[in-house]
Amino acid sequence: MVVVKRTRLSPEERRAQLIDLGARMLADRPLEQISVEEIADQAGVSRGLLFHYFASKRDFHLAIVRHVSAEMLERTEPDPSREPLEILHTAIESYVDYVSENRDSYVSLLRGTASGDPEMREEFERTRATMASRIVTRLPSIGIEPDHRIELAVRGWIAFVEEATISWLRDPHITREELIDLIVTALPAVAMSAASAAALLGTAK
Amino acid sequence: MVVVKRTRLSPEERRAQLIDLGARMLADRPLEQISVEEIADQAGVSRGLLFHYFASKRDFHLAIVRHVSAEMLERTEPDPSREPLEILHTAIESYVDYVSENRDSYVSLLRGTASGDPEMREEFERTRATMASRIVTRLPSIGIEPDHRIELAVRGWIAFVEEATISWLRDPHITREELIDLIVTALPAVAMSAASAAALLGTAK
Repeated sequence: MVVVKRTRLSPEERRAQLIDLGARMLADRPLEQISVEEIADQAGVSRGLLFHYFASKRDFHLAIVRHVSAEMLERTEPDPSREPLEILHTAIESYVDYVSENRDSYVSLLRGTASGDPEMREEFERTRATMASRIVTRLPSIGIEPDHRIELAVRGWIAFVEEATISWLRDPHITREELIDLIVTALPAVAMSAASAAALLGTAK
Repeated sequence: MVVVKRTRLSPEERRAQLIDLGARMLADRPLEQISVEEIADQAGVSRGLLFHYFASKRDFHLAIVRHVSAEMLERTEPDPSREPLEILHTAIESYVDYVSENRDSYVSLLRGTASGDPEMREEFERTRATMASRIVTRLPSIGIEPDHRIELAVRGWIAFVEEATISWLRDPHITREELIDLIVTALPAVAMSAASAAALLGTAK
């Protein structure tokens, strides 16, 4: 039984506290098992107050998912002072380490019940789109001019990254360094092959 | 109102008929909107008889998903009399055409509510594993010896194929030929880059 002293927080602090407790709980169990009652107990507030911040349990779950997506994007934010391939390598390292620390929640969010909920999927899609646009905007600096084909290849590569990482978390036959290397080298490989396929067909834009 | 003459079918024929009606209905609407009553009406049988073949609505939906997965795998079955890269090209052509014909059901199955159901996901995973093993067993014939890293790259490539195809169905900025080309060239690109990354690190097995 966790006993928390009642403290007076501003609405924004309270909201952040509740989401933070939810995100920490997500490390141990799937989203659908995060109970509003338990969170209210841990925060030392009534269930009624919690529903003042989140209209429903699903709303609360959605806020947790937004929190962890934003956290992952913060952790993998490119450092513009470095070289493009170094940026990619560092971002992928941070990504692999972030999902390794949050292994169960990551797999259960992307491959669990949550993946069937339209708003959750929308949130994952937005996260993927942010990851893809970080890549696409940097392609010219390594000599690749993005077109529709290359944008599609980058979206496909994001799916490649997720699938390779989830398979690796479930069944780690290779080392962390080998996984990072596999992911990093796959991006120029697919982007170049998309570019050269375009050139071959004579339809590069 | 569809009126169907009552016909006496063997249990296997009846089961096949019901699944087939369900699979055809899936072309027009998401799985969760396929009603057991409507299927029973179309087949000219009672709802009770339908539940003799499938224990629940979900069981029936699962049988429909297995049917379409098997149909897709049949359509993309490699023709061993051809060259490896030709096999790949033909298989991807058949895949893109199959999902284009079943556009809505394909997207709603892989990105809709069904994707949140554990048994549905298991079925999709089995389908992806079959697609991956078709590729992996043919790699030696193009000079690539599969190891764990390359197997992971092939799994990642399957996710690449799905994502690129779904993005393309939603927003077809490039032609069918360009999509097929993009997917086909990406496979040797990721497999080669996985193999060369292994060689560079000196850990190829």
